[in-house]
Amino acid sequence: MSETAGKPITCKAMVARGPKQPLVEETITVDPPKAGEVRVKVIANALCHTDVYTLDGHDPEGLFPSILGHEAGCIVESVGEGVTSVAPGDHVIPAYTPQCCEVSCIFCQSPKTNLCPKIRGTQGQGLMPDGTSRFKDKDGNTIYHFMGCSTMSEYTVLAEISCAKIDPQAPLDKMCLFGCGISTGLGAVWNTCKVETGSSVAVFGLGAVGLAVIQGAQKAGASKIIAVDINPSKFEMAKQLGATDCVNPKEVEGKIQSYIAGTMTPWGVDYTFDCTGNVEVMRAALECAHRGWGTSCVIGVAASGHEISTRPFQLVTGRIWKGTAFGGFKSRKDIPKLVDRCMSGELPIDHYITHTFQGVGKTNDAIDALHSGDCLRAVVRYE
Amino acid sequence: MSETAGKPITCKAMVARGPKQPLVEETITVDPPKAGEVRVKVIANALCHTDVYTLDGHDPEGLFPSILGHEAGCIVESVGEGVTSVAPGDHVIPAYTPQCCEVSCIFCQSPKTNLCPKIRGTQGQGLMPDGTSRFKDKDGNTIYHFMGCSTMSEYTVLAEISCAKIDPQAPLDKMCLFGCGISTGLGAVWNTCKVETGSSVAVFGLGAVGLAVIQGAQKAGASKIIAVDINPSKFEMAKQLGATDCVNPKEVEGKIQSYIAGTMTPWGVDYTFDCTGNVEVMRAALECAHRGWGTSCVIGVAASGHEISTRPFQLVTGRIWKGTAFGGFKSRKDIPKLVDRCMSGELPIDHYITHTFQGVGKTNDAIDALHSGDCLRAVVRYE
Repeated sequence: MSETAGKPITCKAMVARGPKQPLVEETITVDPPKAGEVRVKVIANALCHTDVYTLDGHDPEGLFPSILGHEAGCIVESVGEGVTSVAPGDHVIPAYTPQCCEVSCIFCQSPKTNLCPKIRGTQGQGLMPDGTSRFKDKDGNTIYHFMGCSTMSEYTVLAEISCAKIDPQAPLDKMCLFGCGISTGLGAVWNTCKVETGSSVAVFGLGAVGLAVIQGAQKAGASKIIAVDINPSKFEMAKQLGATDCVNPKEVEGKIQSYIAGTMTPWGVDYTFDCTGNVEVMRAALECAHRGWGTSCVIGVAASGHEISTRPFQLVTGRIWKGTAFGGFKSRKDIPKLVDRCMSGELPIDHYITHTFQGVGKTNDAIDALHSGDCLRAVVRYE
Repeated sequence: MSETAGKPITCKAMVARGPKQPLVEETITVDPPKAGEVRVKVIANALCHTDVYTLDGHDPEGLFPSILGHEAGCIVESVGEGVTSVAPGDHVIPAYTPQCCEVSCIFCQSPKTNLCPKIRGTQGQGLMPDGTSRFKDKDGNTIYHFMGCSTMSEYTVLAEISCAKIDPQAPLDKMCLFGCGISTGLGAVWNTCKVETGSSVAVFGLGAVGLAVIQGAQKAGASKIIAVDINPSKFEMAKQLGATDCVNPKEVEGKIQSYIAGTMTPWGVDYTFDCTGNVEVMRAALECAHRGWGTSCVIGVAASGHEISTRPFQLVTGRIWKGTAFGGFKSRKDIPKLVDRCMSGELPIDHYITHTFQGVGKTNDAIDALHSGDCLRAVVRYE
């Protein structure tokens, strides 16, 4: 155990005080982990649009004050009572989708899903599984957790079942990307849709998730990969990753779904992916899926209250509408494998890191970079 | 060849002269089959809601005058040039979803779908594949075909690829049911959803299709089958066929989806089926599918212009939305097998026939019976 084990740690964190406000750099107290919990030192944190979505006030269930961040690489500082799967010094990726592995958990026991609901209730309330927070500000007031991670802090506390232990040789300032977006895009292709060799794919939205879909589809052997974005500056990297065709819906006459299923292909595309969060794009993605068997996967997070719609005829004529969360990966079992594949050189991810910053205090700069439009992932190294 | 081969046949038919009007019994002329076509004597025709839907003017693409009917048992009278798969005297079930079996047909060659598009264009225009009709009224005016079948006539002409040849020992006044609704319900369970032993199922709408879903689910080994209808008189047969629970949404507080996924089950049902055509029910069926892996299948035909909607979160948390047409059965290959299973006693269907009539002229009475609410299938025997 470290010197700090069992004691509160005082450190720097970026606190979200309210919607539509910049994060505030504050000195906070991180309490020791309770039973079944793990306190970690955050080495690097990458910005994801879900953090920004909450900070911008679009999530009606967003809690403030809170510590955001959920795509990070960490080192275990100390563990609470009963923790056996990780020990101080272990390298871990925090997982907002935990994996309890209990025999009684029908979700963990099913090969069909990764949605372990074990701590879902408290996680949604911004609290640890016992219903309390480990964070206090300098006045002793509670700060909420976020997505079970809260990695915009030099130290944070995780549930043991949210800790994916990875190869300690792997650089945490890169592996952090496997904590959310890149895994989600790859897994949507490999797990949720199980794209086959020779199939056709269309990807709507060429941010980091969409590019990961292209990378995953290329590795799965897709023979046609259509990349769709209204920003043509995204097309170059899409092609580098395996896109065979790039389309700007603004330059197409009529609806993009009719252009893809009609002009570009006779009957549509075997697998389509929405990586935009826009419900109209989700509809377009469904409607250009192949008649008879095309599958469309919703990956993007839609704005609160927005609904997807289509004519039921689209389903009756064989299209399948599904969605994915964290790409269907079982976090503790699968993240270490992704890291190993990356370390072997088989799964490069460096190209996603377009911006880097030094020090947790630079997190607002990273958010600005993410807003700029030419950023895929902005990684903030904490030391 | 019969005496009538190569010549027009004059016979009785029920003609749909316009929407919202009773069918008119008329003497019509049925031209001989052209190349790739088959003329059949209709022995029995069962009423299906799709006929009534068109007759009631709900289908904006419905054509008049036309001869409706698409769930029938027939005997081949003569065949056109090049027809090799059936011969005069063969017993056939007309299939509104044809099966061309051509090597170049990606739909027929795919195990994932039954939606052969070979004659889709002309079939939708109420015409035979060469773009003309075989029906004339007594004044020599063209009458349109319907769904490639038009079995509300003593004789009709089918494309060869729409003829499923069956065991000649099987009674056509029962086997006609395999031409649409019963096959659709069974196939939605067996082909489209592949319901596994021990899984849970919910069925919305207990007409013939919904009851066939229950029968199919019971045979697939489902351990829980929830039957849902606002008419509780349907529950007795549902139970006889295998339903373990019956629910009337009108007697439930709150939404039916919350009652099924919440009160009746903790996380929802593995497979749900809409057999109502009501888009709100389709939504309910999706939303009570099991978190993580539940699949909901749209079977009912929705009214023109109506759309299905839900929050994308329903898909992101693992629910899958799909649909079925003719239960995914490849018509010419699979209808004969269904007939064989029925003849062996393994797949009883007598219970669906609640009303019978004699003579094509009684078709309006059969439609009235179908409207009465306590009718599953009304079969009209033509001789």
